[in-house]
Amino acid sequence: MSSRSSRYKPKSGWRRRWFTVIYEADTPGGKLFDIILLIAILFSVLTVMLETVSYIKIEYGSTLLMIEWILTGLFTIEYILRLIITSKPGKYAISFMGVIDLLAIIPTYIAFFFAGSSYLITIRALRLIRVFRILKLTRFIGEAETLSKALKNSRFKITVFMVTVTSIVTIIGTVLYMVEGPEHGFNSIPKSIYWAIVTLTTVGYGDISPQTAMGQFIASFVMILGYAIIAVPTGIVSVEMNKAQKEKDYKTCPKCLYSYTPKDAHFCPECGVNIDEFNEAEGSE
Amino acid sequence: MSSRSSRYKPKSGWRRRWFTVIYEADTPGGKLFDIILLIAILFSVLTVMLETVSYIKIEYGSTLLMIEWILTGLFTIEYILRLIITSKPGKYAISFMGVIDLLAIIPTYIAFFFAGSSYLITIRALRLIRVFRILKLTRFIGEAETLSKALKNSRFKITVFMVTVTSIVTIIGTVLYMVEGPEHGFNSIPKSIYWAIVTLTTVGYGDISPQTAMGQFIASFVMILGYAIIAVPTGIVSVEMNKAQKEKDYKTCPKCLYSYTPKDAHFCPECGVNIDEFNEAEGSE
Amino acid sequence: MSSRSSRYKPKSGWRRRWFTVIYEADTPGGKLFDIILLIAILFSVLTVMLETVSYIKIEYGSTLLMIEWILTGLFTIEYILRLIITSKPGKYAISFMGVIDLLAIIPTYIAFFFAGSSYLITIRALRLIRVFRILKLTRFIGEAETLSKALKNSRFKITVFMVTVTSIVTIIGTVLYMVEGPEHGFNSIPKSIYWAIVTLTTVGYGDISPQTAMGQFIASFVMILGYAIIAVPTGIVSVEMNKAQKEKDYKTCPKCLYSYTPKDAHFCPECGVNIDEFNEAEGSE
Amino acid sequence: MSSRSSRYKPKSGWRRRWFTVIYEADTPGGKLFDIILLIAILFSVLTVMLETVSYIKIEYGSTLLMIEWILTGLFTIEYILRLIITSKPGKYAISFMGVIDLLAIIPTYIAFFFAGSSYLITIRALRLIRVFRILKLTRFIGEAETLSKALKNSRFKITVFMVTVTSIVTIIGTVLYMVEGPEHGFNSIPKSIYWAIVTLTTVGYGDISPQTAMGQFIASFVMILGYAIIAVPTGIVSVEMNKAQKEKDYKTCPKCLYSYTPKDAHFCPECGVNIDEFNEAEGSE
Repeated sequence: MSSRSSRYKPKSGWRRRWFTVIYEADTPGGKLFDIILLIAILFSVLTVMLETVSYIKIEYGSTLLMIEWILTGLFTIEYILRLIITSKPGKYAISFMGVIDLLAIIPTYIAFFFAGSSYLITIRALRLIRVFRILKLTRFIGEAETLSKALKNSRFKITVFMVTVTSIVTIIGTVLYMVEGPEHGFNSIPKSIYWAIVTLTTVGYGDISPQTAMGQFIASFVMILGYAIIAVPTGIVSVEMNKAQKEKDYKTCPKCLYSYTPKDAHFCPECGVNIDEFNEAEGSE
Repeated sequence: MSSRSSRYKPKSGWRRRWFTVIYEADTPGGKLFDIILLIAILFSVLTVMLETVSYIKIEYGSTLLMIEWILTGLFTIEYILRLIITSKPGKYAISFMGVIDLLAIIPTYIAFFFAGSSYLITIRALRLIRVFRILKLTRFIGEAETLSKALKNSRFKITVFMVTVTSIVTIIGTVLYMVEGPEHGFNSIPKSIYWAIVTLTTVGYGDISPQTAMGQFIASFVMILGYAIIAVPTGIVSVEMNKAQKEKDYKTCPKCLYSYTPKDAHFCPECGVNIDEFNEAEGSE
Repeated sequence: MSSRSSRYKPKSGWRRRWFTVIYEADTPGGKLFDIILLIAILFSVLTVMLETVSYIKIEYGSTLLMIEWILTGLFTIEYILRLIITSKPGKYAISFMGVIDLLAIIPTYIAFFFAGSSYLITIRALRLIRVFRILKLTRFIGEAETLSKALKNSRFKITVFMVTVTSIVTIIGTVLYMVEGPEHGFNSIPKSIYWAIVTLTTVGYGDISPQTAMGQFIASFVMILGYAIIAVPTGIVSVEMNKAQKEKDYKTCPKCLYSYTPKDAHFCPECGVNIDEFNEAEGSE
Repeated sequence: MSSRSSRYKPKSGWRRRWFTVIYEADTPGGKLFDIILLIAILFSVLTVMLETVSYIKIEYGSTLLMIEWILTGLFTIEYILRLIITSKPGKYAISFMGVIDLLAIIPTYIAFFFAGSSYLITIRALRLIRVFRILKLTRFIGEAETLSKALKNSRFKITVFMVTVTSIVTIIGTVLYMVEGPEHGFNSIPKSIYWAIVTLTTVGYGDISPQTAMGQFIASFVMILGYAIIAVPTGIVSVEMNKAQKEKDYKTCPKCLYSYTPKDAHFCPECGVNIDEFNEAEGSE
């Protein structure tokens, strides 16, 4: 992250010092700033959550409101600082993290200016968007490369799987609607599809469940199907993860293209070439 | 698909041009046609679904009926076109996709001709078969080769697994029927087997659940069993997927039979033979 | 199976001919016998099941009783035949399949001799044991070697996993009993452990569910734990299946012990030795 | 365990003989002691459990109390013995197993000294802590190295996965709170997050379930998501287990670094070096 954003690093002065703290995570100051920010975000998310618990709101409503305003103030200062100290403020403002940082502070202000008895519910909803502050947590997950790479490589197969599952639940939902009908809670095809998803994914709320022998027979089939096809995404991700792991642990010999060379080897186990010398020679050509 | 169906491609004229659009997906015209068809299918499936939601039917019933007739008309034209422009219409009519294409249009016509107050419910059920139009979507999933190959290779092991699971749920269902009995909702062995499936697959509706200590003890055992044996289909598919992936990425050296040669290698990393030359020599012998 | 039981094959005469039919599955007569037996077993299991469905029993009770007696008669004849035509009847009688074959026929006879109004319920329960006839189905699954081998190899790890899971649910069950108490359905520690299993295995009946905020917080933790540790048995079986598959597809070179030799190779890809000749030379030494 | 604790082994006398029995599991006496201890622990855990079942407590309350005191006495003697016979009693007292051993006996004594009519409930709760005796069982699971190694190696990826899942359920919980609201059981954001966890992990109690069409649509999405992302921890553990297995079965040739050498090979299948001699030569250098 620091290497990517270092292009926007101011040349010198106090802005350069602050840039190190706010944008870079690999200096002592930057690390401390990030940890404090993380705690503040978690704290503010917790505040929004507790505000929705009725008996807590009645007793500690004003305290929560105060904490909310203090944290919003801090986040506003942080946002302005980020804009000031980078050499390209526009780039930051329209970046993914920049937009989320802005979305995390505006709802509180909007709630202040448009405070009217009739708009209260809408405003509360806007405030809830502040929970998306939690997305800022992604800032601290920079090491999950193998994981995200495996998921990225399997995204196509996952899509094919998803389309297949969607088709299956549509057909099953329709069949169950025809078999059970509205008198057993299967009011409409969309609701029957909802039931099919609840069953196929093995969630099984039990708010709707087949009552007729025929419906229960089909449902049994759906459950065993769901139990079996859960193997498919698992298999996909396992294989991709295995590959991503291998690519991380092994490298290809630059001369003989033998695939299973341990990353730290100096000689290719296949053709015996000195890899480091070979790479240098290639580079100097 | 295009390579397989190209045998039925008319030699020349407008039929040849239309064949390119309707049957082949790799030309600009064919791609556009397929996308429009895809949207029309999804739209018609959505219409059938919404028709079953009572309050939508009351308000927009006539609009939905009109959309249904327009889309049925378009699908009819498409079906007739497909019959006309192929050089072997019989082959298409009795093919899997041909039968589905026909099944997707006839219910609307049947509903029209047999429309009478007493047949209404039956007719509605017939109309619902149109949801199976979603199967036409399979036309667009032609790339999932690795996935389907892995599933195909594991079909035998999956069958053995399924037979075992069926035996287990039959025995467990019987035992629970004996332990709990009709007074706790376990009315009959088939219903107890239904419960066993609901439990073993970890769906757990909760419409039937053991009440006695003994029943709950056995149920606990079933749940842990289900939790453990879900590993089996997963393991099967993982292994097959791994193999399918490897077969896709690697080839065997024709001389030394070394298994892990990258597909694009010209020399075997094991014995150093020039694979392309070796294959040519073998072929010319 | 035929190779194992052929030791008990009578030398000649009609018993030898019948042995081929009843005990061996690889002759036309034996195959036909096995298929008829399979159908008869499934039919008899179905009869027992339908007998427990009250409205079917009222209407077709006598028919079901007659079918039951005919099938019991046939199975008795089969059992006696098996005893007569083998040269070691005692070996069969005390074998696993022999005991199951006997258990599958005696309940009907016991129900006949001890028929009294007060013993009826017990007798019905005894009859249900006939469902274990389904275990005879295992006779027809002889090819699931890779599957069973993988499960056998992973039995130790699965045991360790099971003991760990049992410890976890005991502790969680106790904690929830202390947190929720009998007033929210957590009557006793065994019942709380039952709840913990229902939750950890993601079955989730919903007959008992935490009501307090603290209980729901702990339950959330348990669910995520259960969601994560389901990966463990899956991983175990996957790895073992991968190994079992590899052992099936590859062999070890008898000279250089190179592990990845394709099964049908004549020369070792590693040391170039002619495997067939080497094995012969080894054997003749 | 014995090799680690042998540093604390007394030099001679009766203490040395008892040390062999109590601390070491690889002598006949030690094995017998461990098995008796295992049975005693399981027995005492069972006693605590049964005490919470009301009708058992009424009938066998005094018997259970007696068993409890006898077992507590035995565990006390065991604890004191462990302290006496080791040459470093302090080391044992503050070790993980030492603390658990103490925690397993003190609640019974506390319950005795503070026994008063008003403290009854608290005392019962204290006694329940004795269930944690089950943790002593971990003493007997020392062989699960491959399993625990795989879990240890995947702990970082599992953490990243957990943080991601926590973020997802927080956002989904908030959205559902906004969509469904308190009138459908979604009283507060924490409760909505509880629902999101119940759904994403496919537990599905059904105590809270979406009622509006919009809520059910989002819930369907969550279920399919949960069904798909269960593949991630499974994939992680599978890969790590595969690696742990490989590291156990193979070693790297010290000369050519070829990775797939069977552990018991004396010559590297790749470069033909005599591994044992090579290692000796390296060591003597």
